[in-house]
Amino acid sequence: MSAPISRFPVPDINAVPDDIRQMMLAVQEKAGFIPNVFLALAHRPAEFRAFFAYHDALMLKETGSLTKADREMIVTATSAKNGCLYCVVAHGALLRIYAKQPLVADQVAVNHLKADITPRQKAMLDFAVKVCLRSQDVGDADYAALRMHGFDDEDIWDIAAITAFFGLSNRMANVVSMRPNDEFFLMGRVPRK
Amino acid sequence: MSAPISRFPVPDINAVPDDIRQMMLAVQEKAGFIPNVFLALAHRPAEFRAFFAYHDALMLKETGSLTKADREMIVTATSAKNGCLYCVVAHGALLRIYAKQPLVADQVAVNHLKADITPRQKAMLDFAVKVCLRSQDVGDADYAALRMHGFDDEDIWDIAAITAFFGLSNRMANVVSMRPNDEFFLMGRVPRK
Amino acid sequence: MSAPISRFPVPDINAVPDDIRQMMLAVQEKAGFIPNVFLALAHRPAEFRAFFAYHDALMLKETGSLTKADREMIVTATSAKNGCLYCVVAHGALLRIYAKQPLVADQVAVNHLKADITPRQKAMLDFAVKVCLRSQDVGDADYAALRMHGFDDEDIWDIAAITAFFGLSNRMANVVSMRPNDEFFLMGRVPRK
Amino acid sequence: MSAPISRFPVPDINAVPDDIRQMMLAVQEKAGFIPNVFLALAHRPAEFRAFFAYHDALMLKETGSLTKADREMIVTATSAKNGCLYCVVAHGALLRIYAKQPLVADQVAVNHLKADITPRQKAMLDFAVKVCLRSQDVGDADYAALRMHGFDDEDIWDIAAITAFFGLSNRMANVVSMRPNDEFFLMGRVPRK
Amino acid sequence: MSAPISRFPVPDINAVPDDIRQMMLAVQEKAGFIPNVFLALAHRPAEFRAFFAYHDALMLKETGSLTKADREMIVTATSAKNGCLYCVVAHGALLRIYAKQPLVADQVAVNHLKADITPRQKAMLDFAVKVCLRSQDVGDADYAALRMHGFDDEDIWDIAAITAFFGLSNRMANVVSMRPNDEFFLMGRVPRK
Amino acid sequence: MSAPISRFPVPDINAVPDDIRQMMLAVQEKAGFIPNVFLALAHRPAEFRAFFAYHDALMLKETGSLTKADREMIVTATSAKNGCLYCVVAHGALLRIYAKQPLVADQVAVNHLKADITPRQKAMLDFAVKVCLRSQDVGDADYAALRMHGFDDEDIWDIAAITAFFGLSNRMANVVSMRPNDEFFLMGRVPRK
Repeated sequence: MSAPISRFPVPDINAVPDDIRQMMLAVQEKAGFIPNVFLALAHRPAEFRAFFAYHDALMLKETGSLTKADREMIVTATSAKNGCLYCVVAHGALLRIYAKQPLVADQVAVNHLKADITPRQKAMLDFAVKVCLRSQDVGDADYAALRMHGFDDEDIWDIAAITAFFGLSNRMANVVSMRPNDEFFLMGRVPRK
Repeated sequence: MSAPISRFPVPDINAVPDDIRQMMLAVQEKAGFIPNVFLALAHRPAEFRAFFAYHDALMLKETGSLTKADREMIVTATSAKNGCLYCVVAHGALLRIYAKQPLVADQVAVNHLKADITPRQKAMLDFAVKVCLRSQDVGDADYAALRMHGFDDEDIWDIAAITAFFGLSNRMANVVSMRPNDEFFLMGRVPRK
Repeated sequence: MSAPISRFPVPDINAVPDDIRQMMLAVQEKAGFIPNVFLALAHRPAEFRAFFAYHDALMLKETGSLTKADREMIVTATSAKNGCLYCVVAHGALLRIYAKQPLVADQVAVNHLKADITPRQKAMLDFAVKVCLRSQDVGDADYAALRMHGFDDEDIWDIAAITAFFGLSNRMANVVSMRPNDEFFLMGRVPRK
Repeated sequence: MSAPISRFPVPDINAVPDDIRQMMLAVQEKAGFIPNVFLALAHRPAEFRAFFAYHDALMLKETGSLTKADREMIVTATSAKNGCLYCVVAHGALLRIYAKQPLVADQVAVNHLKADITPRQKAMLDFAVKVCLRSQDVGDADYAALRMHGFDDEDIWDIAAITAFFGLSNRMANVVSMRPNDEFFLMGRVPRK
Repeated sequence: MSAPISRFPVPDINAVPDDIRQMMLAVQEKAGFIPNVFLALAHRPAEFRAFFAYHDALMLKETGSLTKADREMIVTATSAKNGCLYCVVAHGALLRIYAKQPLVADQVAVNHLKADITPRQKAMLDFAVKVCLRSQDVGDADYAALRMHGFDDEDIWDIAAITAFFGLSNRMANVVSMRPNDEFFLMGRVPRK
Repeated sequence: MSAPISRFPVPDINAVPDDIRQMMLAVQEKAGFIPNVFLALAHRPAEFRAFFAYHDALMLKETGSLTKADREMIVTATSAKNGCLYCVVAHGALLRIYAKQPLVADQVAVNHLKADITPRQKAMLDFAVKVCLRSQDVGDADYAALRMHGFDDEDIWDIAAITAFFGLSNRMANVVSMRPNDEFFLMGRVPRK
């Protein structure tokens, strides 16, 4: 009953443009497998390049006060609101690894109000969920609430942009029925030996 | 940052009535630990007894066409809609074990439409989610859709009753902030040796 | 055009197990008729027993500050949110009788914010409605709001548990199309002579 | 704890313009009391006159296939969706009287899908509820569904207009906290001698 | 692909009752064309008369602190929430003209929180939107918020009544697919020479 | 009362990286002004580049059956659902120009079901709105409905990706309160001389 990676054709790694293949090989080298989002989105090379350029600008940036775990926590919580299986599973795995907390991804995916997170992280996710579900209502009070927890305006942009970018990702994954790699489900749950 | 089992006092196992202690010891014998729902609900012995009598009547019954995995799948999917951390994690574990599928619980918790389940299970969850979220709209068409997948009326009662009973459980767990035991998160994810 | 009691078979009172028949006869003795919930749920004796054990643990308990009228008011208000005809009509009748107020049940069924109730009862129903519709969002602020009106934690458990239990009842009644006895509609509306 | 008729000043019957007083006296003559909507809206005579002219154009018209009971049923069902205490209680009373059915008003106020009504009336209320809650989605399929039950276009206008007009009434009653007269609650529940 | 004015028959101006024709000619004299709402509603003369009597009582009244622009702003913002093409376009035009602001109508139609309006107008629209979408929740806090911006109770009635009346209008326009005159789209966007 | 372009600092065109300045000058050359989205997003050059690369991949592509007007129609309709003032106004302008229809943008922004569009465009927008608001429910039936109107799978990807990308854009614009240039409001409404 296992579903395909995508409703759309998935190109062979040998058939994709060189730069995309290099990206695939690099992530395979690091993770041990090629995450399906690389394969599914390679169906459209120009969109693929823009997608990962955006992703890297937000998720690999070295400035600001959001940790890598914070960023993956935003992705996990908001992707759950959008019912996006791929992103909850894949980014939940990254969250477990970066946070070194095997339980936190499942917690924020179900209900961040019950998760083992700090008040600052709760405020961060409250805002991310609002940007995800009703960004039209965001206003001064939301900025003020975040500043009370030490977030500055650049952090607020980061939270919003990560939420917005993965909202795009969630919609594409939902529409193409993108399947998370089986490997993600277990990553970060058991201590590495 | 780990939260307590419940907002309410949790009785010592030695302080609970005999019949309740026997139930706790029996589940501990079987599972290796006492699930927190037993400890949290023991705060009210009379409700505890009714809760587990109801639970057993629905989840341990030997009649009908719903498998144990089907029943836990209903609990996992509808508890996710209610944002109930305890039930998604605890019953997701049972679902993985009964279904012998390490991925299915995470799948139905995020979006049952993308899960590796049968069309019959999809119809079952479509109905369960409707009972969970807008039971006032249930009618003839819902019965007809389920019968097309081979469910009889007793199965339909079972799906509805499991959903309704765990809706009760979800609300109590949400209100008392019931914490799932850490053990549940990993159960059924790796093959038993 | 009068509908049957339930979509499911309704057992003859002479065909049900002795303990269930005794319960039916007792309520008939007291009320003058057998409420249809007894007949409809007797289709499943084990569930019947658990249901009424739970019901009695919550609705007949002698401790806590909730009056019988308060409890029926919670049931009436939340059952209306769930669109449950049986419970609004049957428990609305009990509310009128316990509160000795012929208008209050119709008021809370339509909009508790416009009902002739105390600020304390309004706070109680605000919380009950939240538990009914979005228990995942319940948190510290809800507890604090209730304590300001003199409710202690055990009262809060009571409000939540009554709401949760009748949420189960509402879903079963909706799914089986449980019909309220005609007698309930008029009970408590005119002074007993 | 009984609330006033309206948050706004209620004019004395002797202080209102003649034509409005005549209307009040006429309804008092017929009903035995002055419904509070007359008193509350008399605060604004020009709006009062337009309101009742609109009301009479829709509710007293002699053409079309909607019975008086049908029209009051539309008002009762849609006013319940808008949480309007005044209209559910007052028009529920009229519905009971016109339909000569003591139970039907409570039924459609809670859930018209479970009411003792005809399939034609169910289709009528399905449409009225859609006009009430999401008129922006009304289209060809809604017209077709109604025509299948024998409604012609003028009937469809009537259903829509009654729903729309009482949506206005519901909003005014909610904002001014219009209180239904106590007399309405019991009207039509017991046979007239 | 241009749609008709209404799903229902539109009477010829020479065939309508005299008083209605006079109203049509008067508005044509002033605006240069007959707004389609006059033609579409003339299908039902009695309702037409009540509709415009109500309209004029609210929109032409000389008392209270709401400007003509404020009133049209309420209509534009709430009609957008109801997805009513006719009213957004026609009253957006009037708003542009009365406010002498060519941008404000498009702003409040999309999101009044981002519009070039005063804090007082924002409070007015916050309330109007609440009356439009969930009038059942209106209460003391809403009155208090408006009074803080200098609105008195008569102003509050005006805001509510305008919202409620155009809620009626929106539903009728949606159901009959009332088409805005092409002229409205451009009115007030360019300075009159 | 005119608001700034963005809550965040807007860089001077002379202070932005060369490639970004070239893009700004090119659009200024073409449109006569620099759309504020270029200025607001230039606050983050890396994100700016990814944003416009993505934008161009979707909106400037030469393949597929979607016209430029179709694409801007998708943006206008879904941005309205997200309450995004910038995108409704800016892309509404482009829609008017590409479609050579001065009315269509206001129509689809308020309610695409009432717009002067083809059945094929209506199906396209039905799908886009679903991807915008509840992409988790997209499935086979949605693909089938689009294929009936002649869309192939690559078109479906395009509709989804445009909706998803502008969902990102909408959220960023809402959070930073991005202000549409005044010029957009009138563009395409009057024939060019």
